[in-house]
Amino acid sequence: MNNSSTNTLNKTRLLLIPNYLADDNPLDFIADFVRQQVHHLKHFVVENEKVARGLIKKLKLASSQQELTILLWNEHSKPEDMREIIDMLKHGVDVGIITDAGLPCIADPGADIVKIAHEKGIEVVPLPGASSIFMALMASGFNGQGFTFSGYLPIDKIQRAKRIKQLESDLISRKQTQIFMEAPYRNNQLLSDVLANCAAQTKLCIACNISALDGFIKTKSVAQWRQQVPDLHKKPVIFVLGN
Amino acid sequence: MNNSSTNTLNKTRLLLIPNYLADDNPLDFIADFVRQQVHHLKHFVVENEKVARGLIKKLKLASSQQELTILLWNEHSKPEDMREIIDMLKHGVDVGIITDAGLPCIADPGADIVKIAHEKGIEVVPLPGASSIFMALMASGFNGQGFTFSGYLPIDKIQRAKRIKQLESDLISRKQTQIFMEAPYRNNQLLSDVLANCAAQTKLCIACNISALDGFIKTKSVAQWRQQVPDLHKKPVIFVLGN
Repeated sequence: MNNSSTNTLNKTRLLLIPNYLADDNPLDFIADFVRQQVHHLKHFVVENEKVARGLIKKLKLASSQQELTILLWNEHSKPEDMREIIDMLKHGVDVGIITDAGLPCIADPGADIVKIAHEKGIEVVPLPGASSIFMALMASGFNGQGFTFSGYLPIDKIQRAKRIKQLESDLISRKQTQIFMEAPYRNNQLLSDVLANCAAQTKLCIACNISALDGFIKTKSVAQWRQQVPDLHKKPVIFVLGN
Repeated sequence: MNNSSTNTLNKTRLLLIPNYLADDNPLDFIADFVRQQVHHLKHFVVENEKVARGLIKKLKLASSQQELTILLWNEHSKPEDMREIIDMLKHGVDVGIITDAGLPCIADPGADIVKIAHEKGIEVVPLPGASSIFMALMASGFNGQGFTFSGYLPIDKIQRAKRIKQLESDLISRKQTQIFMEAPYRNNQLLSDVLANCAAQTKLCIACNISALDGFIKTKSVAQWRQQVPDLHKKPVIFVLGN
C-alpha cells in the first residue's frame, strides 16, 4: 500500500474501506490486512451511520465508537456537508470512507471526496475487498477483457427498452460485456423488460445475493430464462449480458 | 457463498481464487475466508504453474504440492487442453482457477472455463479479493456509476491514437469513466500517446504498482501530467480517463 512517508507535503491519507456484501458473510470475509490498515482511524465519511457503525464494530478499532467523528455523504448530502468533510481532511488526520456494501466509489458514494483528496495532494489508499459487480462479472463466464457497467437503467418503460436494446447492440458491436443493476424492489420488472427486449440467444447472467448462503449466480440464454423466471424481488442482484 | 447442497445434480464447484497483486503484499492481504474455502482443493486450472504454486504455498492447503493436479489454461492453450479441463470438471471434484495476479476471468484467463461450468450445471463460486482494475477505479475519484474497461489498446500507432480519441469521446458523450492497460514494457509509449492525443483538461489517473510499497495512484489533468511525465517502464499500471 502507498506508504504515507512517500507523501512529504501532506501526511493525511484517505482510506477506501471495503464493507461486507451480505449480512451472513463470516467475519473473516474481510482480510486482516484491512483491519490493520484501519485500526488507528478516528474519522470517517459514511453512506449510512448505522450500517457504518456495524462494520466499525466488526473491525475492532483502537478507539471506542463514542470517540469517532462520523460525517455523512450520500445522495441526500448538500454542498455544506462537503465543506465539513474538506475541513476534516485539512486537519491532517487519516479519514476512512465506508459505504453500505462492497467498495466505496463504485456504484456507491465517495468519488467526489476522492477527487478533492487528489486536488489537495492527500494520498488515496484503496483497500482490497469484495465488489458484487466484479464478482458477478468474473462468475458470469463472459468476456472479462472488455466490459461496461451502466449502473441503474432508466425507469421509464420506453426509455428503458431503448437502453436495453442499446446495451445488447454494444455487446455485439463493441465486444463489451454489459453489467447493470436496479433498486431491489424493481428487479422483477427489470428482468421482465430484459427478457422481453433481448434476442432469444443473448446470454444473461443473474447474480443474486452474491456471497450470501441463499445466493446464486447463473448464466443462461434469454430463451432459457423465459422458460423459468426467478423471483428477484427485494434481493440485491447484478445483471450481466454477454456471449 | 452458494452452498453445494443447492446443486443436487452436480456437486462439483468451480472456485475462482484471488491472487496477490504485488510481491510485497503481506500474507493477510487475502482473507482467511478464502483460505478456508480452498483448503480442501486438489485440482487447479492455472495461468502459470510456478506463480500458482507460489500462491498455493501461501494458502496452506490440506494436500501437499505433489498431490495436486494442475492444468494450464492461458493464451498459449489449445482446444485439447480444454478437453482435459472438461474431463477434470466431469470427475465431480471441486476445481480452483488461479491467475497470475488479482481476479481470474477479469483481464485474465478463465472465462472460457466458467462458461463451460455454467453449461454443465457446475456451481461457480467467485471468492473475494483485490483487483487492480477496480482498486484503480475506486481510487481515481472518477465516476463509478458508469465505466468501461477496454483491456489492451491497439499497438499500431495510428489505430491506437484513434482508439484513445474514441475513449475520450465516450467519456464525455456516454458519461463512462474509461479504464485501460498495456503490457508493462510498453507503458511509457502508451502514456506518451495518451498525453499527445487527449485534451489538456481531460483527467488521467495513473495507478502504478497498486498495493505495493513503491506504488502510487495519482489523478491529474493531461496538462499537468505533460509537465512531469512519470517513468512507468515495466511496472504494472492501470490507466483511467475521467472527469
